[in-house]
Amino acid sequence: MGNSPLIENLSLNQITTNNLSVEEAVKACVKNEVPWISLWRHKIQETGLQESRKMIKESGLKVSSLCRGGMFPAETLIQRKKNIDDNKLAIEEAAELGTDVLVLVCGPSPNKDIDTSRKWVEEGIEQLIPFAESRGVKLGIEPLHPMYAADRSVVVTLEQANDLSEQLGSKQVGVIVDVFHVWWDPDLYNQIKRAENNILGFHVSDWIIPVPDMFKGRGMMGDGVIEIRRIREAVEASHYNGPIEVEIINQSIWDRPGDEVLIEMKDRYLKHV
Amino acid sequence: MGNSPLIENLSLNQITTNNLSVEEAVKACVKNEVPWISLWRHKIQETGLQESRKMIKESGLKVSSLCRGGMFPAETLIQRKKNIDDNKLAIEEAAELGTDVLVLVCGPSPNKDIDTSRKWVEEGIEQLIPFAESRGVKLGIEPLHPMYAADRSVVVTLEQANDLSEQLGSKQVGVIVDVFHVWWDPDLYNQIKRAENNILGFHVSDWIIPVPDMFKGRGMMGDGVIEIRRIREAVEASHYNGPIEVEIINQSIWDRPGDEVLIEMKDRYLKHV
Repeated sequence: MGNSPLIENLSLNQITTNNLSVEEAVKACVKNEVPWISLWRHKIQETGLQESRKMIKESGLKVSSLCRGGMFPAETLIQRKKNIDDNKLAIEEAAELGTDVLVLVCGPSPNKDIDTSRKWVEEGIEQLIPFAESRGVKLGIEPLHPMYAADRSVVVTLEQANDLSEQLGSKQVGVIVDVFHVWWDPDLYNQIKRAENNILGFHVSDWIIPVPDMFKGRGMMGDGVIEIRRIREAVEASHYNGPIEVEIINQSIWDRPGDEVLIEMKDRYLKHV
Repeated sequence: MGNSPLIENLSLNQITTNNLSVEEAVKACVKNEVPWISLWRHKIQETGLQESRKMIKESGLKVSSLCRGGMFPAETLIQRKKNIDDNKLAIEEAAELGTDVLVLVCGPSPNKDIDTSRKWVEEGIEQLIPFAESRGVKLGIEPLHPMYAADRSVVVTLEQANDLSEQLGSKQVGVIVDVFHVWWDPDLYNQIKRAENNILGFHVSDWIIPVPDMFKGRGMMGDGVIEIRRIREAVEASHYNGPIEVEIINQSIWDRPGDEVLIEMKDRYLKHV
């Protein structure tokens, strides 16, 4: 089964405890000795950026990433420009919060022409690069599971994320590997190898059967079918040794007390990641 | 938008009217001038093979395929042999019913080792080839959407189906293109091109938002986001000119009167396929 991952790489992706405020999530991490946290913009907005920043700073937690930028495609140029502006704001927020990774969920197609939307994604990221560089923030292209192709992301495979990253050819752009989104892919290990030195984040959860919900359907590590440890070892062999975010979108986990979730998450991290 | 498909290629995949018996489905096809039908084994079993065969023969309908063989992976050799035996039975049934295509849904992995299950799929199909040849039945490898990787099929992309088909190197084996399963794939049109002269079936439905259910989540053509006509034209450019099956797994469509569904299906076929 290989070795457990380092506990100092464990990160709570805030969506795993979606019912908690920034303050509550930060406190839970400190109490349970989880050294990293990944923040979501809708949560930051509730608390306020400066207030969130202050809490993080005082806690001593490190911020693994900000979720999320992206959502590039739109039928009008005006709307696509608005989307770029919002991404710039997200980059500013990431820099303020002290993380150098903005996770990109690239967005769905506004119409049936998915090819054009994929071009808009590339154009969108390209336009962000100089701004991201000036703020010291990297852009992590996260391929989402193909079941989200219609409503969340036209980028659906690690191959596609690698292609995009290569075409853009900027050290500011890399890829995110989330086991829930990529585990099914027959080409996964080749693409992780191809992403060598270009992986900006690694997210874990599990694929449970039956999937309880299309969106809120992820399971706790160890409860599903994903070879998480094998994927983690492949990602490490591609020289990613940064924080590992536990990102679980699941109503029944949201409904549990935060401390209980964090205790289980740490245990499962050591056993299954 | 291109031209409508030929009405003489329209086939009712029986699962679209899952509440109807074989007899009812056959009658609905005759009444609504749908020239083809695709049959499911669980329906044939309810009615009886010989009785079903008689009904089909008397109706004048043509049978586009039998659904489904496959389900190869299993942890024990004994169970994998049983699965082969069941596939041989399915081949016999297909021949009896007068179709030369058995659709293969290759099966999920019984454990976390998806690579080994993929090998079992290849071995399973390989073992079936001589028998299929002797009965004049072709084996259509249908890649399923990656969201079914854990519970229905470890074959999840058309590339993978093409790889399998090439490796097996038999004229008895080809691929099935179902728009619901493959529409999201960035490599789709390359893989349809690659499948030239090797496509054994083309299935249509639509991807609706939100997907109402992981399994029973398909929509009527035109109600979703798939570029169905573009995919149909690509499939035809790869020299597939056979029956086009309407295969919709959706409780609310099942709950409607069969005639109503067939009338709508014909209309949508001409407008959107």
